[in-house]
Amino acid sequence: MPKIKNKYPLIIIGAGPAGLTASIYASRYKIDNLIITEAIGGMVFKTHKICNFPTEQEILGSELVEKMSKHTESLGADFIINTVINIQKEKQIFKITTRDKKIFFADMLLIAIGTAHCKLDLPNEDKFIGRGVSYCATCDAMFFKNKIVAVLGGSDNANTTALYLAEIADKVYQIYKKDKLDGETALIDQIIKNKKIKIIYNTNIIGLDGNKKLEKIILDTPYKRTQEIKVDGLFVEIGSVPQKILIKDNNLFLETNDSGYIKVNSDQSTNKEGVWAAGDITTASNNFHQIITACSEGAIAAESIFKFLTHSS
Amino acid sequence: MPKIKNKYPLIIIGAGPAGLTASIYASRYKIDNLIITEAIGGMVFKTHKICNFPTEQEILGSELVEKMSKHTESLGADFIINTVINIQKEKQIFKITTRDKKIFFADMLLIAIGTAHCKLDLPNEDKFIGRGVSYCATCDAMFFKNKIVAVLGGSDNANTTALYLAEIADKVYQIYKKDKLDGETALIDQIIKNKKIKIIYNTNIIGLDGNKKLEKIILDTPYKRTQEIKVDGLFVEIGSVPQKILIKDNNLFLETNDSGYIKVNSDQSTNKEGVWAAGDITTASNNFHQIITACSEGAIAAESIFKFLTHSS
Repeated sequence: MPKIKNKYPLIIIGAGPAGLTASIYASRYKIDNLIITEAIGGMVFKTHKICNFPTEQEILGSELVEKMSKHTESLGADFIINTVINIQKEKQIFKITTRDKKIFFADMLLIAIGTAHCKLDLPNEDKFIGRGVSYCATCDAMFFKNKIVAVLGGSDNANTTALYLAEIADKVYQIYKKDKLDGETALIDQIIKNKKIKIIYNTNIIGLDGNKKLEKIILDTPYKRTQEIKVDGLFVEIGSVPQKILIKDNNLFLETNDSGYIKVNSDQSTNKEGVWAAGDITTASNNFHQIITACSEGAIAAESIFKFLTHSS
Repeated sequence: MPKIKNKYPLIIIGAGPAGLTASIYASRYKIDNLIITEAIGGMVFKTHKICNFPTEQEILGSELVEKMSKHTESLGADFIINTVINIQKEKQIFKITTRDKKIFFADMLLIAIGTAHCKLDLPNEDKFIGRGVSYCATCDAMFFKNKIVAVLGGSDNANTTALYLAEIADKVYQIYKKDKLDGETALIDQIIKNKKIKIIYNTNIIGLDGNKKLEKIILDTPYKRTQEIKVDGLFVEIGSVPQKILIKDNNLFLETNDSGYIKVNSDQSTNKEGVWAAGDITTASNNFHQIITACSEGAIAAESIFKFLTHSS
């Protein structure tokens, strides 16, 4: 285990595909870098199967993360597993505070903290988390072997989740607000063919019910003459929102779009000198949030940081 | 071998990382696609070792290509190995002619033909190609086992080439016009430590000499009091230029920058409706031409094509 220093030329916050690839490129440019992250791999680690990474026909999210993180570590990046709770710019230096009150300093900063799953925003929701309500099929699907589950959502992530759950549960209701599923046609075709999955279109969930654990979901539109469906589990896959803590609750004042995604220039720099951003939290790559686009943004950011360093030294 | 049709919704020209990834995404969107290419893998296939692809610590270019192309083929893309010599837009359909006079029609076109190695532009150059002068170390290095070679150039590609040749040849002169090498510090450090490599700075090559094969290179500045160096081989690594044939010599009139790279919007679309471009031939990714950025551009293009198709149908 290398000794963690308290000052680095570059600190990368977040270790999803964007943060890891940025670190790989930065290390190859010999820019000493520290990654501070809550978890290695970000959302990818929580993804069951990945079928659209160009060099892998099918791979578990956790395996893809391992390949990237081993590469990153092999080049000498330092890692801290913790939450960043504050960033301040003091003169030309960034001061970063973690939840355990450690302080690190950096000349340059790369924000790659990604997004978090949207919640339903229903009264009982928090009470049922871990008691039937989940936002991560990869983490929790196995608790529902031979049970009845629902998936809320109809985009690629929801579709992948429904297909995965159909391998484990007895029955999967997929509930979606629109009259057809969105995203990759290949996934939609599989869902429609799958006898375990029953799609309920034009419908939303307006209530959660149960005693100690989730027992029923309440729909806004009757399905087979009832608005209540008995389920053992509900997987909420209604999209993601940018992680906010570092952007709104700090004094960096990074410019974001209306949805809270960090606006970046073509070199992944932000409106603040010395701060770059990459991955799902940004407006880059035509807002197409994929593993491969996040990797690319990380590489572009690192090259831009290298140029910045070369020209300013 | 699937039967090749003569009309496709999408024809992709070029099968480097951009074209292959675009095909993977398009196939997953169930957009039937044909790839027409001179060679599978583009420049990557000719690259010896790749050390900066995020999921691979070190991999041969040919292996990385194989991983991507197998993935592409597994999803049902059709392939034609040939050169496109003409593209015409007739009404709303693109008509593509290959060198062997076959004709294909497409609703949408993705140009991903990449770049070609720059030549030296010296009188004897063509005469010595395959007789000492090479633009591809991966292809030709083995002919120079225990011999004396020169590499012209000082960027990442030249540096990788010099290091690779040092594993095979007895002596490597690296000749560069600047007073220090460019690109990744990790590579530069290795070159400087390598006892087989002798760097000649601030120098260019102005002549090639030899009888049936290359025997000498002529420098513009004396090195150890002579302008002539005896070599068995010369590897020219002075950058790349966009493949021009499809852009300038046809009636698509795609907008390019002054260097001939196709200008693309954030969704990889070009100035012509129905034509997208991705990879090294474009101005995307902040002009940072990497395997990972090319893959990303291919994915973004495919999503944009899918949206275009969905909205126009």
